[in-house]
This record gives sequence, C-alpha cells and structure tokens, in this order.
Amino acid sequence: MDVSANKGVGGDAFVVGVDFGTLSARALVVRVSDGTEAGTAVSEYAHGVIDQELAGYGELPPDWALQDPGDYVEALRATVPAAIRDAGIDPGQVIGIATDFTASTCMPVLADGTPLCQLSGLAARPHAYPKLWKHHAAQAHADRINAVAHERKEKWINRYGGKISSEWQFAKALQLLDEDYELYQRAGRWIEAADWIIWQLCGTETRNACTAGYKGIYQDGQYPSREFLAALDPRFAGFAADKVAHPISPLGARAGRLTPAAAALCGLPEGIAVAVGNVDAHVTVPAAGPVAPGKMVAIMGTSTCHVMNGAELAEVPGMCGVVDGGIVAGLWGYEAGQSGVGDIFAWFARNGVPGEFAKEARRRGMPLQQLLDEQATAAPPGAHGLVALDWAGGNRSVLVDAGLSGAVVGLTLATTAPEIYRALLESTAFGTRMIIDTFGMSGVPVTELVVAGGLIKSAPLMQIYADVLRRPLNVIGSDQGPALGSAIHAAVAAGAYPDVPAAAEALGRLQRDVYRPAAARADVYDELYAEYVQLHDYFGRGENPVMHRLRAIRDRVLSGRSEAGVS
Amino acid sequence: MDVSANKGVGGDAFVVGVDFGTLSARALVVRVSDGTEAGTAVSEYAHGVIDQELAGYGELPPDWALQDPGDYVEALRATVPAAIRDAGIDPGQVIGIATDFTASTCMPVLADGTPLCQLSGLAARPHAYPKLWKHHAAQAHADRINAVAHERKEKWINRYGGKISSEWQFAKALQLLDEDYELYQRAGRWIEAADWIIWQLCGTETRNACTAGYKGIYQDGQYPSREFLAALDPRFAGFAADKVAHPISPLGARAGRLTPAAAALCGLPEGIAVAVGNVDAHVTVPAAGPVAPGKMVAIMGTSTCHVMNGAELAEVPGMCGVVDGGIVAGLWGYEAGQSGVGDIFAWFARNGVPGEFAKEARRRGMPLQQLLDEQATAAPPGAHGLVALDWAGGNRSVLVDAGLSGAVVGLTLATTAPEIYRALLESTAFGTRMIIDTFGMSGVPVTELVVAGGLIKSAPLMQIYADVLRRPLNVIGSDQGPALGSAIHAAVAAGAYPDVPAAAEALGRLQRDVYRPAAARADVYDELYAEYVQLHDYFGRGENPVMHRLRAIRDRVLSGRSEAGVS
Repeated sequence: MDVSANKGVGGDAFVVGVDFGTLSARALVVRVSDGTEAGTAVSEYAHGVIDQELAGYGELPPDWALQDPGDYVEALRATVPAAIRDAGIDPGQVIGIATDFTASTCMPVLADGTPLCQLSGLAARPHAYPKLWKHHAAQAHADRINAVAHERKEKWINRYGGKISSEWQFAKALQLLDEDYELYQRAGRWIEAADWIIWQLCGTETRNACTAGYKGIYQDGQYPSREFLAALDPRFAGFAADKVAHPISPLGARAGRLTPAAAALCGLPEGIAVAVGNVDAHVTVPAAGPVAPGKMVAIMGTSTCHVMNGAELAEVPGMCGVVDGGIVAGLWGYEAGQSGVGDIFAWFARNGVPGEFAKEARRRGMPLQQLLDEQATAAPPGAHGLVALDWAGGNRSVLVDAGLSGAVVGLTLATTAPEIYRALLESTAFGTRMIIDTFGMSGVPVTELVVAGGLIKSAPLMQIYADVLRRPLNVIGSDQGPALGSAIHAAVAAGAYPDVPAAAEALGRLQRDVYRPAAARADVYDELYAEYVQLHDYFGRGENPVMHRLRAIRDRVLSGRSEAGVS
Repeated sequence: MDVSANKGVGGDAFVVGVDFGTLSARALVVRVSDGTEAGTAVSEYAHGVIDQELAGYGELPPDWALQDPGDYVEALRATVPAAIRDAGIDPGQVIGIATDFTASTCMPVLADGTPLCQLSGLAARPHAYPKLWKHHAAQAHADRINAVAHERKEKWINRYGGKISSEWQFAKALQLLDEDYELYQRAGRWIEAADWIIWQLCGTETRNACTAGYKGIYQDGQYPSREFLAALDPRFAGFAADKVAHPISPLGARAGRLTPAAAALCGLPEGIAVAVGNVDAHVTVPAAGPVAPGKMVAIMGTSTCHVMNGAELAEVPGMCGVVDGGIVAGLWGYEAGQSGVGDIFAWFARNGVPGEFAKEARRRGMPLQQLLDEQATAAPPGAHGLVALDWAGGNRSVLVDAGLSGAVVGLTLATTAPEIYRALLESTAFGTRMIIDTFGMSGVPVTELVVAGGLIKSAPLMQIYADVLRRPLNVIGSDQGPALGSAIHAAVAAGAYPDVPAAAEALGRLQRDVYRPAAARADVYDELYAEYVQLHDYFGRGENPVMHRLRAIRDRVLSGRSEAGVS
C-alpha cells in the first residue's frame, strides 16, 4: 500500500500506537509519512498494581503483583479517542493500530479469551488475575524449571543465559498449577497480556514472536517438550500444547482487522490493520532510528530493559534471552535487564529521605527526586564513600535471581540521604556496565548505546551512566519511545512500509552523543565498579547466600506469625 | 573519717559527682550515708563537638572531633552550684567532689596545665585542641603503633586485644607530632581531660590508674619504652617520659583539696577532698551496686562501653584493654566497647526517616526515636529480612578498626524506614553479643549483665538485647550512673568509706531481671546473628577490605577536589 493512497481529502495518514505500562497506558497518534507525533493521551489503571490487598481475598503474600485486565480495556477507551482529539485529526485518517505491553505479564483465560478473574465466583482468587511482570513469587518454580532443564540438558536453557526467570510464563503457570490446580484446569489458554489485548482488538488469538521467544521458551520452532514438562509435574505435561501453542506471528505482521466492538471502544474505523502484539522494551528499538546489530537500546524506567539486535547467535551468561526475530524479523534479538532501577530511586525517595528535603523541593517547585539528583551529584564521584547493590527488586541480568536484595556498604555517621541516593543511582549504572561487559565478553559487543524511557529526563543520572560506562550516550528523540515503536509497527502492519527497518529509518528518532564521559570521573567510577563487582559476586554467585536466607526467614516468620506466637 | 562526723547542725554529709559527657556535663549531689540523689543539674557545652568547622581555620578534615576545654570549666560553674541549689542543702554539707570524663579525650597543655588552644595565636590550630574520644583521624598512627608493637613483640600489646585504638593517647599524640610538630614541641604535657579537670579543681597534676592503663598504655608499672617510641619516630622517643609520665594514683584516692579558685567556681567549701580522675564508663561499675568479678556493666549511650572486673589476668582478642586496678583497685579491669550505638540510631533518625514519621511523632507528642522504636518492634524478629553491621562509627571491639563502616543488607522495594531502624538496633545487640561471646571464649565468662546509660530508657531496645543475648538484663537503679559513680569515689576520697567496694555496696543501685529473653524470639535472632557473624568476618577480618578502600577513595577525592578538577 502506498502512503499517499491513504491521504484522504482531510490530509495525511496516521497510525496509533498504544503503550501499556506498569501503572498507565499511553496512546500516541503518529503521521505515517514522517513520524510526526500529532497527539497523545495517558490514562492510569484504576487498580494499578495489586500487590498488597486483593478485594475479597485480603492481604497478598510477599512478592505478589497482580493486575486487573479490565483496566487494559478501559485504557483503550480512555486514551485512543483522547489522543485522536489531541491530534486534531479525523479518526478516518487512521490506517492502523498497534500495541506494546509489559512482559511477561501473563494470565489464565477461557478458550474464548475471557479472563478467569472476570468469571462469577473467581474475583477473590489471586491466581485468576494477570501476574504482572514484577510478580516475584514464582521463584521456587523458576528454580525447579532451571534445575530440571540443566539436569535434562535441555538445549534451550542456554538461550536464556542458563536460567529462566521467575517473571516468565512457565514459572508463573507452574505456580498456578501448584497453588490453585482447579484454576489451572479451568484455564483454556495461558496468554501474555501483549497478545490478549490484540485478541480484544481484532477478535482473533495470535502469539507474537517476541513474547513467545523471550517469555514463553519458544526456540527453534518449538516449546519445551511434553517430557520436560512432565518432569516438572506430570499434570503440567500438556501445558504448552494445550494452553499456549499457536502459530507464531512475526513482529510487524497484521494480526487482523479492528472489530466493530473494538472500533467503537477506540473511536477508530472498523477494519483498519491491527498489528501483532509486542513488548514495550523491544518495540522501542525501531523508535530509536536505524536498526543495526550492536546498537543496544536501554529502556530505563521502573526497571531497565536492554535490547539489541545481533547478526549471529551467541550465548550470553545471564541474558534474559536471545530470540530469532525477537526484536526485528531476520536478526537475533538479545535481551537483558535490571529488575529495579527507577523503582529503587522512587522507593528511596519515599522511604529514606528526611522531610527537610521534601520541604525544600516544594519550596523550589520541583519533584523531590529532581532535588535529590541535584544534591547527590554536587560532590565528586567517590566522595560519599559508598557502594550499593541495585537488587532491591531482585537481579534479572546477569544473575537471574529474584531472591537477591539490595545492600549499601560504607555508611558513616556523616552519610546523608542524597549520598545514599547517589550510591543507588550509581549502582544501577554499575548493573548496566556488568551487562554490557558480559555481552562484550560473550562475543556480542555493544558498539552503540541508546538510552530511552522515563529516566532520560534526569541529566545527572545520564551523566553518571556516561561516566560509569565510559561511553557517549545517544538519546532516543521521542518522549514516547514505546508508543512510537508501536506506531511504527502499525504502519508496517497497515502496509505503509515494507518492513520494520524501513519504517524505523523513516519514523525513528535519535540524538547522538548527548552525554559524554569525562576521564577523571570515569577513573574514580572504575574503582567503585571494582568494589561493586566484588560484592556482586560475593552476594550474587553463591559465596554468601545471605540474601536468600534473610528472605526465607522473613517469609517463614510472616507466614507462621499467628501460630508461632512470635511477636 | 566517720560519716557522722561530717554531719553539721544543718544535717547529713553530701558529695558531688560531675559526669563530663560528649555534649554536656551533669553534676549530682548524693547523700553520703545512703546514696540518696538529692539534686542535679545539667549544662551543654557551648561549642559541643567541633567536627565540621573550627572558627578561624575552616572546614575540618573527615573524622576529626575536637572540643573546647573552656567548656569543661564553664560546665563546673554552670552545674555544681545549680545542683546544690536543687538539693536544697548548704554547700557546707559537701565533703568531697569527684569527676568522670569521656576517654580518651586528650590534649596538649603547657607544664602548668594551660591548654595550647588558649594561647595567643593558637586558637585557629586544630591540633591545639582536645581531641575528643570520637576523633577518628589518627587511624594511620594507630596502625603504625600496632605494626611496630607486633614487630617488636611488645608484650603490652596483648593487654589491648592485640591492637590499640586510634582513639587513644599515643595515636592522637603521634598524629599531633606528624601533622603539627611545632605544637607537639610546645606541649609540655599531654594529658587526659579526665586528669586535666582534676588539675583545675585541686591545682595539682595527677594521673589516674584508669586512663593511664586503658588509654595510655601503662602496664606493669611502665609506659612503652623509649626504644619503642623511637621506632615510631625518633622525635617521639621522649614522649612518655617528658610529656606523660607521673606517679599513678589509684581510683578513689584523694588527688588533693579544692583550691580557693575552684571553690569559688563551684560554690563549694575550700579544702574539701577532690578524688583522682575517672572515666564515665568505668566509674559506673560501682554505681551498679556490689562489685564482683564476671559482672559486666554495659554503659549504652552514643557509644557503648563494656566494663567488667576479673579476678585473673586473661587476654581477650579485640578487647580495649585489661588494666590492674583499672576499675576497682585490687581487681583486673576489663574494657570492651562499640564505637557507635546511640549515635547510629540518632544519625538514622536525622538522615534516613521520611517526614511523615516526624509529623506523627509530633502529633503524638513523643520523640521521633520513641515512635521508631515502637513501630520498628511491632513486627516479629526477622520480618524485615534485613541484617546490618553496626560500624557507622567504626568498630572498637572486637575488631579495633575505626576504618570500618556500616552496611545494610536485604533491602527490598517494600523495606520501610522503621524496618531499617530496627535492623540497626539489632546490629548493636549483635555487636554486644560478639563481645560477650569473645570474653567467654577467652576464659573471662560474663556471669551477669547490667545495662546503664541513656539507652536504657528504650524498653523495645532493651528487649531486643535480652532476646539477642538470651539472658536477663539487670538495670542500673540510677538515671545518673556515671555521676553517682563519681559521687561514690568522692565519698571514698573524703574518707567516708574505706574503699570503693564498700561504698558501692552502700550507695550503688541495681534492679534485677528487668528484661527477660523469650525463646521464640531468641531462636530467630540466633539465625540473624549467624548472618551478622558471617558479614562481620567478611568485611571486618580482611577478606574484603572494601570499607577501607571506599574510605581511602573518599579521602583522596575530597582532598584532591580542587586540583583534580573532578566534580
């Protein structure tokens, strides 16, 4: 389809990208010809992250994180028409829609796609809900999967750095089976929210190459074998075949056409192209301009995802995964990640900073974290005498261990809150360096680093990253990287461009060398990084599994609280 | 002298004890016959702790902590007459005065006792001031002393657990020599504030057995040899002989009689007995009732001192010292300590707690730390999933290393400020357990534990100690332990009792088994203590000297800040 053919009397053709984040969704209207971002709208989920209490059930155990799928549908209704209005275009100018989602956010549904939590009588059953990516209560199940995979020498396990994560589909499904077998049986399908939302838009179940590969252990054309699954639990043998298996759609393909009901919901024309689902991190790669092997895009928000295309297949220890066509069809897509980044900064700002700083931030009319950024980076690197581990949300890469936790070392009676805050900022930069170094040592060198995501707004943080990584940072040219990436996929699904790289070249945006390292600072960070690495290995590679034991004590104490009479 | 002989027409005989603390001094008026605390008064030092800026000099380097000796004299004027008034007695009823001091707080003075900092032209010279006990900038000098002592196999070094502390007289004096040799030369005497204040009261220089032994390396009747001192620095060879040596006075002895000037200052009769100087911790032992070997008194304040009498001489690794007659003449006095205890809690309350808690504390009309105590201990032990090291102020026993620093391990995105606060409370209890266990393993078993000091007001903290130590806590029966202890020494110096044990029996106060351990809690603490021990040894015994390296980076970065252009 030629772009010009879509220009009506009223003007240019547009596409809509919808980015489903952890707390909110955002729709972005993009002009197909040049990537102009014409309008946008955001809506917060009514239920947000359900990690404390589930109505009708009560307090959730530690590490749980659920969502309400009704919020996803409501977000379409709240954002798409508003973004169209904001763009000031006629809905008839829209030729396609695409979405991206957090992942692995996965859920049990009936064969027709109805979420179990929406069935009568199941609203108070935690396992009936989507388990958000940061649900970390399936670690024991991930451990079991990993142990059995290594025991059986499953070749797919090395595509995931030797360990699959507790965040992924199979670990979360095994937890469902273990803890609520009745619901497991009622689940006709076990599906990523990324694919479920597409089902709501075009009326047809699809499975995208990205989540299937990264989160669903789909490698070389197949899911883990029936024998492997039976070894985990005989009742789990048919899981992949019965609840997951489905033809895989390449990214940028058309999943179907917008149904009348979805068209009404979104205020868009019936029948326009709906692209197959995608993941917020991966979809951002084409939004950052030309697609090339070795170009790593770090999407930095509550957590950070590192995604990169490679021409060759390699095995990188602790990477989240390498997937054929996982980012762009025709290349190997590599993914790594840090479980907690912005989450850690926000946690500290809420829980670790005296009131005087909040007062000062109010006085100066700035967010608290901006004040902390400023105060934390007023001194030279190393002046705080601290080193921290960025594991308050667990460690995704390169240790793949949600049971780890954070640490701060070097506290004195003169240590201030901004100093600790800075040590936390630095710790996440060290975590990224660990990932980039590991890729390099594994034969997948990172030749260019692009940063994207909400945290790029913090110039002090970005400067820390440039200095710690001793490389210039290119910055994505859009504030809405994932939504722009989705829009790029919508344009391809609608036939406006032949493929994703062509659309990325035309519609993606990049600013080069926005932050450059300074040698004097980088030298000090090298020393601090050496300390980080030593503590990383001590606490993270088994020498002292104190973090696991502390977590076990906590869980035992809290679960046995009433019986034990310990108080 | 018979007590009844001192009763004038106006009534009973009294003594005054003055406790010189870190931030303030307190005078206590005690009835000689039965220990009744008749009146008291407190006064804060005008200059407090000088650890940031010295007027005329500017910003002090890290780890410095000075005081102004004029504040000590002013404190006598401010507290003694006020305490007498508070007691409602006639000053003529007072038969003796004694004092106790922080230690090692030591200073350079002229041969007549004039502090160098009071000389014309020296007010802006940091080294002219008393170095407060928590001045930690002489670690390199302590390291040198320890290395040379071990090299030369000096037998006294094992009386100090194998290491002398950077807090003590010789390390601080060696720093003076290294860094301001001119002032070193001008110092006719190098003296503990404990002895200097007695000099101000009775006009005569004395040296007490306690500070000479614990802080001045006086063992078996002698100071370190001229040869040893020359090995440290040839210019230091005469240090002990020229600036320190003086006959040693036993505790409870009379140093002299109150001079007319001091009598005017204090509002007391001329000529009454002045006891030899003492140390706040050690003087508290007789205040806690009957003196007995194996009875450890932990004086818990900004730091904690553990003092105990033993019938036999033993060498305990990492103890601060064992001194013949160091606590009570005729017994071996053992001392151990924790550099930061209440200091750590106060630091965290100031620097690590969000405003909402301060607001809640104000609403409920309680100090913030009391609210934190309450909230921190609402959950069962282990529920926070944390373990901390209590080294934000360095480690005195059993590692004797001021270059260590604090750490918190186990942080998650759900961790709250009260949880970290509790982990810090617990860490200090673990530090005490490490000390008690080390004494036990060294053949000096602790058979009874008495707690004293400002922190005994926190019942939640005391319960943590009872549970962690798995033993009942006896609590000193006076709110003014050190001042009561001083008063006991004044009574002995005045001849009202034959010796300190007899006076302690009559005037000391103790409540037994105030806090008892609960087995269920103690079991969980055993697990957490095992984690503490592992981290203690990892960070503290050389396996990973990261804390030292971080401190070195900090010091280098801060000292080279302007030249290096690192910012």
